[in-house]
Amino acid sequence: MVTCLEYASVPMRSVGPLKIVGSELDEDVFLPLATYETPLWASVKRGARAFSASGGLHVTVLHEGMTRSILCEADRTKDLMHFSQILHMLQPQMEEVVSKTGRFVHLQDVYHEILGSLVFLRFEMTTGDAAGHNMVTKAADALLGWLLERFPFLRYVSVSGNLCTDKKASAVNGLLKRGKAVVADALVPNSVCQRLLKTTPEKIVSLNTKKNLIGSILAGSIRSANAHFANMLLSCYLATGQDGANIVEGSQGITYAEQRGKDLYFSVSLSSLIVGTVGNGKDLPFVQENLKKLGCLPQPGAPGKSARRLAAIIAGAVACGELSLLAAQTNPGELVNAHIHLERATRIPQ
Amino acid sequence: MVTCLEYASVPMRSVGPLKIVGSELDEDVFLPLATYETPLWASVKRGARAFSASGGLHVTVLHEGMTRSILCEADRTKDLMHFSQILHMLQPQMEEVVSKTGRFVHLQDVYHEILGSLVFLRFEMTTGDAAGHNMVTKAADALLGWLLERFPFLRYVSVSGNLCTDKKASAVNGLLKRGKAVVADALVPNSVCQRLLKTTPEKIVSLNTKKNLIGSILAGSIRSANAHFANMLLSCYLATGQDGANIVEGSQGITYAEQRGKDLYFSVSLSSLIVGTVGNGKDLPFVQENLKKLGCLPQPGAPGKSARRLAAIIAGAVACGELSLLAAQTNPGELVNAHIHLERATRIPQ
Amino acid sequence: MVTCLEYASVPMRSVGPLKIVGSELDEDVFLPLATYETPLWASVKRGARAFSASGGLHVTVLHEGMTRSILCEADRTKDLMHFSQILHMLQPQMEEVVSKTGRFVHLQDVYHEILGSLVFLRFEMTTGDAAGHNMVTKAADALLGWLLERFPFLRYVSVSGNLCTDKKASAVNGLLKRGKAVVADALVPNSVCQRLLKTTPEKIVSLNTKKNLIGSILAGSIRSANAHFANMLLSCYLATGQDGANIVEGSQGITYAEQRGKDLYFSVSLSSLIVGTVGNGKDLPFVQENLKKLGCLPQPGAPGKSARRLAAIIAGAVACGELSLLAAQTNPGELVNAHIHLERATRIPQ
Amino acid sequence: MVTCLEYASVPMRSVGPLKIVGSELDEDVFLPLATYETPLWASVKRGARAFSASGGLHVTVLHEGMTRSILCEADRTKDLMHFSQILHMLQPQMEEVVSKTGRFVHLQDVYHEILGSLVFLRFEMTTGDAAGHNMVTKAADALLGWLLERFPFLRYVSVSGNLCTDKKASAVNGLLKRGKAVVADALVPNSVCQRLLKTTPEKIVSLNTKKNLIGSILAGSIRSANAHFANMLLSCYLATGQDGANIVEGSQGITYAEQRGKDLYFSVSLSSLIVGTVGNGKDLPFVQENLKKLGCLPQPGAPGKSARRLAAIIAGAVACGELSLLAAQTNPGELVNAHIHLERATRIPQ
Repeated sequence: MVTCLEYASVPMRSVGPLKIVGSELDEDVFLPLATYETPLWASVKRGARAFSASGGLHVTVLHEGMTRSILCEADRTKDLMHFSQILHMLQPQMEEVVSKTGRFVHLQDVYHEILGSLVFLRFEMTTGDAAGHNMVTKAADALLGWLLERFPFLRYVSVSGNLCTDKKASAVNGLLKRGKAVVADALVPNSVCQRLLKTTPEKIVSLNTKKNLIGSILAGSIRSANAHFANMLLSCYLATGQDGANIVEGSQGITYAEQRGKDLYFSVSLSSLIVGTVGNGKDLPFVQENLKKLGCLPQPGAPGKSARRLAAIIAGAVACGELSLLAAQTNPGELVNAHIHLERATRIPQ
Repeated sequence: MVTCLEYASVPMRSVGPLKIVGSELDEDVFLPLATYETPLWASVKRGARAFSASGGLHVTVLHEGMTRSILCEADRTKDLMHFSQILHMLQPQMEEVVSKTGRFVHLQDVYHEILGSLVFLRFEMTTGDAAGHNMVTKAADALLGWLLERFPFLRYVSVSGNLCTDKKASAVNGLLKRGKAVVADALVPNSVCQRLLKTTPEKIVSLNTKKNLIGSILAGSIRSANAHFANMLLSCYLATGQDGANIVEGSQGITYAEQRGKDLYFSVSLSSLIVGTVGNGKDLPFVQENLKKLGCLPQPGAPGKSARRLAAIIAGAVACGELSLLAAQTNPGELVNAHIHLERATRIPQ
Repeated sequence: MVTCLEYASVPMRSVGPLKIVGSELDEDVFLPLATYETPLWASVKRGARAFSASGGLHVTVLHEGMTRSILCEADRTKDLMHFSQILHMLQPQMEEVVSKTGRFVHLQDVYHEILGSLVFLRFEMTTGDAAGHNMVTKAADALLGWLLERFPFLRYVSVSGNLCTDKKASAVNGLLKRGKAVVADALVPNSVCQRLLKTTPEKIVSLNTKKNLIGSILAGSIRSANAHFANMLLSCYLATGQDGANIVEGSQGITYAEQRGKDLYFSVSLSSLIVGTVGNGKDLPFVQENLKKLGCLPQPGAPGKSARRLAAIIAGAVACGELSLLAAQTNPGELVNAHIHLERATRIPQ
Repeated sequence: MVTCLEYASVPMRSVGPLKIVGSELDEDVFLPLATYETPLWASVKRGARAFSASGGLHVTVLHEGMTRSILCEADRTKDLMHFSQILHMLQPQMEEVVSKTGRFVHLQDVYHEILGSLVFLRFEMTTGDAAGHNMVTKAADALLGWLLERFPFLRYVSVSGNLCTDKKASAVNGLLKRGKAVVADALVPNSVCQRLLKTTPEKIVSLNTKKNLIGSILAGSIRSANAHFANMLLSCYLATGQDGANIVEGSQGITYAEQRGKDLYFSVSLSSLIVGTVGNGKDLPFVQENLKKLGCLPQPGAPGKSARRLAAIIAGAVACGELSLLAAQTNPGELVNAHIHLERATRIPQ
């Protein structure tokens, strides 16, 4: 065994409380955030205060399933036609192949696409409390072997064909989902907007349309329109032992706001939130401690439950930081002043 | 002063050596990688060995400039027409406004776009050895004030209009660049491919075309085609005190390979590598130590030099990990077996 | 009845023959092309000659289904959760609702996505020999009424929610398909490349990788990588009475080529080819004549057959023009000279 | 000379009047629309009535320049570094090379991008009254020859590198423009919305946000958010002898609406409107007649003026059709009923 003697120490703090209600939990939580950009702590905290004062942030986990795509080829498209037509009938057998590779992995869906003589297969699997990268790779490898044996005209190209797609921004994960699809929404009263966020529902909605929706479209973003999901995601990921590179697809999501009478409807929708409560990184002591505080340690007999709960909490953190930054940007000068002030206030002692 | 007593401790190791030649350095370096996904260490190391055995990896920094976009509006498009026409003549004055906000920040370019009654301005600035997020925000805020005063028909919308675009995947950063634009390339002899990478140039080129190019196109990726730039970027970012959320745009880049006679031409091109050697996170002791070992401490009288050097080194790490993973995926089963083996070998002791 | 006395007269010519084999036909066809860019005729003809000399172009229709998306909203995401979970169980009833709106329309698939308080439903239907725009709109309108009545918490937003997506470039049509998904491929012998196309397989493959794949990625294209599918599509569409605006999504597709020994494997893959042989525009005398010559008049008792055949033929025209242009671009100067020569040769007499 | 004896006859009608004011014209025009989808006539007419009743539609041409990209390669990135640095200094000489290829073509801007050993150059040129496809190809070919001679380490890859990008949807044309960049906007009084469009400003704004902005984002559109720009573009293109395949990039654009007090601010922004009043297709008698009626025949001594005027008029048609369709979709059932009614009313006599 090779030991690791060095560590990158990323400043970490738990901020809150944030009142979350919804499909996975109904309680106040503190959000652990590890980041070099320490003004984030105050920003998320302000958002948490606003949502808590609004009766809570409602978080809904809509879907879950980890993906991996394999890539094979034939001589010609015509050789793939029959394969394409019978593939859905093979799903029960493929489910069996997958289930044999692990206790917690189950094949849920198969998408395929033919491109000339190439054929991409994208498998979606449930992976219990694990994020599931390795589970689905192992299962995909087994499926690959099974398919190549059964269809001798197929040739191996790659165990990953980039249609998964892992740690890369794309449209496929938004449309077909990867990891957890989660929405966090709340009705924030006008008074909360004014008192805690120093803004109005009208200003937030206008800014969201002009900056997040139109600005992102002009920037050439793909299936994504938000201010800074990536910041909250990464800090939560580092604090809970997640593979932080998954913020690339995880941060693709959309902030949607509208006026409801005098109040603000505010929501963040994420389609590719990759989280786990077991696996690489989760055994580190501070991770275990954070997961425990969050009530996210895996529960025997309830595979997937702790991971869904963690996804809901992280989506909550995303909503808090997003609302707070947008509020700040509605006021000329606030962002710059806040950063100068907060960086001084949270300077990390050496 | 508020102290931070907690830290997320991310396992870190320096792997190498990697022989880098090119515009910023010509020497052997060790690459510091902080990650929960410890098999990455062996993967990057194998790539470093292959490039070093090929006479070195050539890294070229093509461009640098940090960006921030502001967003204003008028009543009607016609009110913006004249503004649009004279904007380039105002650049010298705007350069002055920017330079007054800091010693190291200089306005380099202004891009603007009119959308109905909205006008987005995207400023590109050099920021010395800093990544420059805060410098450009402060300068953009000053420009905003200057413009609003000078053109009374303009109204404030936001100090950030998402056309920057910060920590979000898009096409704009690829086309107009953000941070450093860097290419790392090498000619890898056939013998090195076979001996150290257990593959052939032909297999690498074929896989890159089918997986990275076509697979990414099918996935609906935008201006990006690679296997896992994000992994190397994040681990280097964490080890050197960078804002890790910038891997979202940073990981957009393209791997291009071709056969040259019997050998392999291999390159990675990144257009939005955001790095600094001063600023948030850089004062942490382990960061200082890593920067020192890399020869990347800021040098008086040479603003920007240490940041460019760091960018070159990180692009080198990206190339190493990319080549190694592609090589592994050309061989059925290798990836799965390697992960199982490596995770056991590098298990982190508690 | 209001009569139309004026017509835009677009120059039209049938070029060929092109030998097509595959799932829909096995014969020589002449391709009718209406265009103001008359050099296209010679270009497509050259491609047809090359494929015919290669034993024919193989065309496979992989999938068909026209789409329309509707857009509703609720108060909160949580109200949509249950709806989302039971939607797939309602499909049989929705199929009935659709079938009542017309003899030839059948619901095939339902995709839905929740975004905050909004819910988008994308319906895929078979529409016999019609392209199906109006059929699916009428059916979607009926489904909308049925859903609003059944789920009182839903409110109408739009009978089209842009997730269809009609006449707009996007990723959704590529991933989930719209109209016909078709691949045309061929093995073109080295001798044919040299004699008829004045190029080599190696040059075509290299150009396709550098221009179509990488050039399109750099351009920020989305799920598309070809040289000029749009030209062939529009000219076929105009000649056969199709809604030409559907070239916007139709032209999203990928050209894939590879060397096979000394020969060339060449393919074009289209995922959103929208064609019909009945409906608007099809009753014009010249359209009837063209459809008749192509063997694409609707056949009683075989709904959809003539439209699939037409899709195969149009994909064939796309392949011909694509191969010919790429061949020309492998030779410096050829394209410019050819255009000058051909425009003179095909000048349209007044 | 080869004669063309056949024509595809596309039904055509001029609808209006539309009052246009702005940078190119200030008068009432009738919009010629050639289409198989005849309900479009009534839709555009309704929009024209609404804008005319609002004091006119204001159209601003913001930019013009046709583009072509060439593609070269070197052995290694380092060989391109110096080239990249001095390129802007060569612009005067390149302008000369371009100007020698034609009276009306002038080099305006050069964008370049290095990808590994490949270098793409994208030239932007003014082309007088021509759309300019052939002019820029000829000029690019001359530039290519000049560059290859001057820089012997460069090798020819293609006279078109897909970064132009011609007839393909992408981000580059939106960000860097191609053809004309045009905005059409108007302030539509509440009373006009209610009386002529049977809707309210609030409903239009809400629909535009939910369908055009969010719906397009979810669909994975790239730099585009509108309902059906392509329909109006194609029908105007066919009626005025334009290369209709340019609707692919031309239809990428954004509809932006907001409430202004009780009234509606409505705008369409197009960044890649490719039009000409001379060149292929323009000599056809009906085209000459349409251009004459529109006041768009080229004027000696004013190169580019007639093409800009035509661009403004076509953008006007786009705005009319867009407003009318959105208005219809705010009312459940209206679209379906209108189509059934209008298709009957405008049936084309055989």
